Amino acid sequence: MTAQVLDGKALAKEIKEELKLKIQNWISLGHRAPSLRCIIVGDDPASHTYVKNKVEAAKYVGIDAKTIKYEDTLTEEELIKAIEELNADASVDGILVQLPVPETMSERKVCNAVTPKKDVDGFHIINVGQLCLDMPTIVPATALAVIEMLKRFKIDTFGRNAVVIGRSKNVGMPIAMMLHSDNRHDSGLGMDATVTICHRYTPKEKLDFYCRNADIIITATGIPSLIKADMVRPGATIIDVGITRITDENGKTKLVGDVDYNEVSKIAGALTPVPGGVGPMTVAMLMHNTFQAARTLRENTN
Amino acid sequence: MTAQVLDGKALAKEIKEELKLKIQNWISLGHRAPSLRCIIVGDDPASHTYVKNKVEAAKYVGIDAKTIKYEDTLTEEELIKAIEELNADASVDGILVQLPVPETMSERKVCNAVTPKKDVDGFHIINVGQLCLDMPTIVPATALAVIEMLKRFKIDTFGRNAVVIGRSKNVGMPIAMMLHSDNRHDSGLGMDATVTICHRYTPKEKLDFYCRNADIIITATGIPSLIKADMVRPGATIIDVGITRITDENGKTKLVGDVDYNEVSKIAGALTPVPGGVGPMTVAMLMHNTFQAARTLRENTN
Repeated sequence: MTAQVLDGKALAKEIKEELKLKIQNWISLGHRAPSLRCIIVGDDPASHTYVKNKVEAAKYVGIDAKTIKYEDTLTEEELIKAIEELNADASVDGILVQLPVPETMSERKVCNAVTPKKDVDGFHIINVGQLCLDMPTIVPATALAVIEMLKRFKIDTFGRNAVVIGRSKNVGMPIAMMLHSDNRHDSGLGMDATVTICHRYTPKEKLDFYCRNADIIITATGIPSLIKADMVRPGATIIDVGITRITDENGKTKLVGDVDYNEVSKIAGALTPVPGGVGPMTVAMLMHNTFQAARTLRENTN
Repeated sequence: MTAQVLDGKALAKEIKEELKLKIQNWISLGHRAPSLRCIIVGDDPASHTYVKNKVEAAKYVGIDAKTIKYEDTLTEEELIKAIEELNADASVDGILVQLPVPETMSERKVCNAVTPKKDVDGFHIINVGQLCLDMPTIVPATALAVIEMLKRFKIDTFGRNAVVIGRSKNVGMPIAMMLHSDNRHDSGLGMDATVTICHRYTPKEKLDFYCRNADIIITATGIPSLIKADMVRPGATIIDVGITRITDENGKTKLVGDVDYNEVSKIAGALTPVPGGVGPMTVAMLMHNTFQAARTLRENTN
């Protein structure tokens, strides 16, 4: 038995094609193109790569996207002032601040500076509150990517046992929230699974225990090979959100997830690859969020 | 073996005595007494009893508490206007609207009408968002009561297996949130447990499975005798949030929780009674929230 590969790259392409058509249609109705502003502070190479990928994807689907770069000497106050100008700018629909921000700044303050309706990362307190209350909202893109993959690949979650490993507020927490919530609510994102949240203080033998009992494992730890074949129930679905750069035995660097892919793919029923799984889907869902923000802002001004 | 009885009534008394002293001290520093306004719409007898208990407890600890009663012919708009007047009234620290509101009203709209700083029920989107982000906030009183009982009775939660049964947004969800969260965060409410969230769509055999594996069971379903002795691991701690009025074999009505108390108390290590467990603690924590609101409002005006 070999696990079905949940090809995030192909699915992301499909979603981007759908979005491209929707946005063309939107523009043909007389609206301007949705617009996204990506703020990046400092010169972290990984952050610049992420922003570059986001801007490229945005342009592909027809979103007017621009990167706004600042030196890491920028103060928190200056950054917040720049965000507030974008908040007030009617030609801007989506604002994202690439994390991490410099250590001189409070990440929470910066996230809350973006007005909730333009907060395409879904990190504002109000968006988090709405998500946790099953209300329509903007959902953090990685968490939304995981839920969208479960839906599009028709992985049954109703009454199933799901394990979420990692309790970060941007990834693990919102995934656990949607997975356990009632599907009848307004958000349409509730998945009705029984959910176990594991984290750094879950003893190893308990992590094994919960994983072995799981129909669905979502792992978001950044620990390579944390999930081994003997922790996986035959036929289980595994969504690997981890992404870590390692040096292999030949001295070559490569990206790996949290899952011991080769071994686990012999046991699992379905499995996302890394790279090419959740990563590209995250970018696609960010574009989804930006178009959603544009439509909501337009509805509110009409 | 007989389970330790986690006496919520006695603990609530202790907490109220502490609060009474703190409030006396606060007043002796020149502040006015904290004040609470309880709004009740319609004539549901249970709601009137709850409000009466809250107002009595408030007066006991030195909070100036008043009940504001409306006929159930009140419109949502009128109720929101009344709330907004209390929001603007500098002599009011805490506002609560006894739920349920009449069916003509949106509970969510009403909860969001209370300004977050006076929202002593912790139901406003912003308070929920702050809770879910591990930020200091006002926590829904029943959820806070459960966490406070675990702390005061020194039930170890770090790395332990906890099961929360019920996913309501006022009880199960915030309990699961605090139980699984990181204790190092600002709220001080993170309990670092591995948490499984069960609900109406968790199959019975899976509910049994998770409960049997749990060090701590928190049940909040309103289903009498849901938790039976054979579902409980010897020595486990059980917090029973359920409260249901039933008619017993002699035709007498009585209040019972979700736990088959007599049988389970032979197996569990510690167990809350119903009545006299979480109920009185909820009222005490509401008083805690009101005093907290009064202090926060005062700090912000200084």
